[in-house]
Amino acid sequence: MKVEAKQQVAENDFDRKIAEWCLFLAGNPRISMKLWNGNEYYFGTQPPIAQMEIKDRAVLLSLFRSRPMGFGENYIRGLIEVDGDFYEFVNEASRAYSQKSTRGYHLQKLRSRLAALRSNTMTRSRDNVHQHYDLGNEFYRLWLDERMVYTCAYYERPDATLAEAQLAKLDHVCRKLQLRPGQRVIEAGCGWGALAMHMAEHYGVFVTAYNNSRKQVAYARAEAAARGLANRVTFVEDDYRTITGQCDVFVSVGMLEHVGLRNFSTLGAVIKRSLKPDGLGLIHSIGRSNPRPPDPWIARHIFPGGHIPSLGDIATVFEPFKFSVLDVENLRLHYARTCRTWLQNFEAVADKVRRMYGEEFVRTWRLYLAGSAAGFRSGTLQLYQIVFAPHGNNNVPMTRHYQYPSAARAE
Amino acid sequence: MKVEAKQQVAENDFDRKIAEWCLFLAGNPRISMKLWNGNEYYFGTQPPIAQMEIKDRAVLLSLFRSRPMGFGENYIRGLIEVDGDFYEFVNEASRAYSQKSTRGYHLQKLRSRLAALRSNTMTRSRDNVHQHYDLGNEFYRLWLDERMVYTCAYYERPDATLAEAQLAKLDHVCRKLQLRPGQRVIEAGCGWGALAMHMAEHYGVFVTAYNNSRKQVAYARAEAAARGLANRVTFVEDDYRTITGQCDVFVSVGMLEHVGLRNFSTLGAVIKRSLKPDGLGLIHSIGRSNPRPPDPWIARHIFPGGHIPSLGDIATVFEPFKFSVLDVENLRLHYARTCRTWLQNFEAVADKVRRMYGEEFVRTWRLYLAGSAAGFRSGTLQLYQIVFAPHGNNNVPMTRHYQYPSAARAE
Repeated sequence: MKVEAKQQVAENDFDRKIAEWCLFLAGNPRISMKLWNGNEYYFGTQPPIAQMEIKDRAVLLSLFRSRPMGFGENYIRGLIEVDGDFYEFVNEASRAYSQKSTRGYHLQKLRSRLAALRSNTMTRSRDNVHQHYDLGNEFYRLWLDERMVYTCAYYERPDATLAEAQLAKLDHVCRKLQLRPGQRVIEAGCGWGALAMHMAEHYGVFVTAYNNSRKQVAYARAEAAARGLANRVTFVEDDYRTITGQCDVFVSVGMLEHVGLRNFSTLGAVIKRSLKPDGLGLIHSIGRSNPRPPDPWIARHIFPGGHIPSLGDIATVFEPFKFSVLDVENLRLHYARTCRTWLQNFEAVADKVRRMYGEEFVRTWRLYLAGSAAGFRSGTLQLYQIVFAPHGNNNVPMTRHYQYPSAARAE
Repeated sequence: MKVEAKQQVAENDFDRKIAEWCLFLAGNPRISMKLWNGNEYYFGTQPPIAQMEIKDRAVLLSLFRSRPMGFGENYIRGLIEVDGDFYEFVNEASRAYSQKSTRGYHLQKLRSRLAALRSNTMTRSRDNVHQHYDLGNEFYRLWLDERMVYTCAYYERPDATLAEAQLAKLDHVCRKLQLRPGQRVIEAGCGWGALAMHMAEHYGVFVTAYNNSRKQVAYARAEAAARGLANRVTFVEDDYRTITGQCDVFVSVGMLEHVGLRNFSTLGAVIKRSLKPDGLGLIHSIGRSNPRPPDPWIARHIFPGGHIPSLGDIATVFEPFKFSVLDVENLRLHYARTCRTWLQNFEAVADKVRRMYGEEFVRTWRLYLAGSAAGFRSGTLQLYQIVFAPHGNNNVPMTRHYQYPSAARAE
């Protein structure tokens, strides 16, 4: 009995130490850890805002070895449970982790470069896109807005709904591009076609939109036909590298994240050969404030082949071709709100999704959406909207008043 | 006689070939070359817009060896004369040269990095600043606006004068920084103090402004005392690396060009230690669309130790410290207009400047001002105004409507 009691004390000491290290390495979030044996650990001074329950010692050790990956893998399998608001829990974890020291900049940059050596060939890109975007239009329709826009919305007014904010985003992009009737637009990565159709319908332009996802392109074509836009919008089921022809405007919203660092100058070359010398372009992409390798859990479960670039990384799209960057707007907090709304919509249909894809899928997507919302809120993720022009194009507006027409119209 | 005639023909052929190569390597500008012997060469199809007169064969050969440097050195010594509007001539030369192939990106980038190995120590920085900014306040007063602002103006209205546009720039910067009364502002590189005094007088903030130039600081202090601002603005004659204390707002307008690539992360570290976590910063700097080494003529005669960075270069100020870039505005065409106005003002007082500093000085400054105007016009030079915030600061505006108050007020 005495030996067993001693062993129990030693085990408890060990578990406590590991829990303490896990929380320390995670930046000491206001989160307590409850172990399989009922022991609860917390080392902060302010009261915890949530509790995570660890189902056995192997889970605790995998958390210790690799925090984000260890959490993700065990959470989706139900080996970690969260007691408290899941979004607030992820938010707090993201805040604490992202506030940690900025040391390791050069190491992270190097790891980011090494990760980028894996190139996205056209075949691999198609497979990557297929894994995420071909999950089924029905699934996305359950929790996206009515236009099926799966990128950052623009909450121009604080009380806007998701649908209003997505519409505002489409117009914000169109205004930045100064679209004029009759212009030719090339869009690289068009999702379900919302922006392409919006540009054609409301700004009188002709759009050729490229997308690797079979199901998205099928949806977009049917929608364009139904809305009588088939003669103004062409959807091409192919890779951005196959883009041909000349355009007045080049736009890409939410594709750069999938291109991979190593192909950035390839994308630049595609834009260079497509965009007329007096044209205008816009790239809208998730970004980071510093170069980092892809998150391994996201790469495994959500976006294989993806790479979230820093602004310095993004510069490598433009600089080899002397594109002039005219305007960068960071919409990070807009994406935090967008993702949080998606998460709420998703939770409202979680039972239906569970019947379609099972419990692990629901937990995977819950973590992905909550983690994204939290990442944008904490500053781990940024959202850059970048307007650019070919070298020497002086046919550009002097000020940005044109981007704020509701104000200007009131004059 | 026959031998002499043959030799003459051979020489003419040689000169013609060299002239042709010079023009070809310069991107075939619409500029003709008139040689010392009266022969004139031009190979374009459209009529030339100006003529450059070459005084002897050595000048022609130095042009061939090194175009921008060869032109600059010989022009300021009167060994090249320009027949036609000097600004239009430089503009055309800059346009043609900058439209040349974008090949050589990686070579230029490497040369830019190698050039950056020369570090600006504090002593060297002071010497560099002294050479340019301590020329004498009287000299700058002759052709700058009344506030003595020696950075890009903001032509918010097309018909604005230089003085109005400089005032608009000061307000544009203040609005972007969302200044509130009582805040503490640190300014790195403050010129004659126009922005520091404007912030204190019109936005109720307390400013500590750093500048290495003895004459500029003396002027700024006298001006602040005369305007009753001495208790709100402190001018420190010292290097940005000596900045101490905490601030709500960090601003630097037109200093980054002098910092040198190698010191960018040092500047980032200074900002990191100075700016409060809920603060806001702005850097305003001349830039390039692609990394390039400093222009050798400018480095020799105008800005020793200077380095004009690309946006990717500028990212290295922010990324090691995870600053979040919120907003980038490119004011290239505003600086083209500003420099052109300075050139016009300068030409109007050229006789006076000649009496003060001699003919070579006048020609040096004419070429510098015209070349800068042309560089911004052709796209060789950019002007980036960058707003940033410390990592995780969510106390930032959601949209940029606040930057356009005249429109918003009209609502």
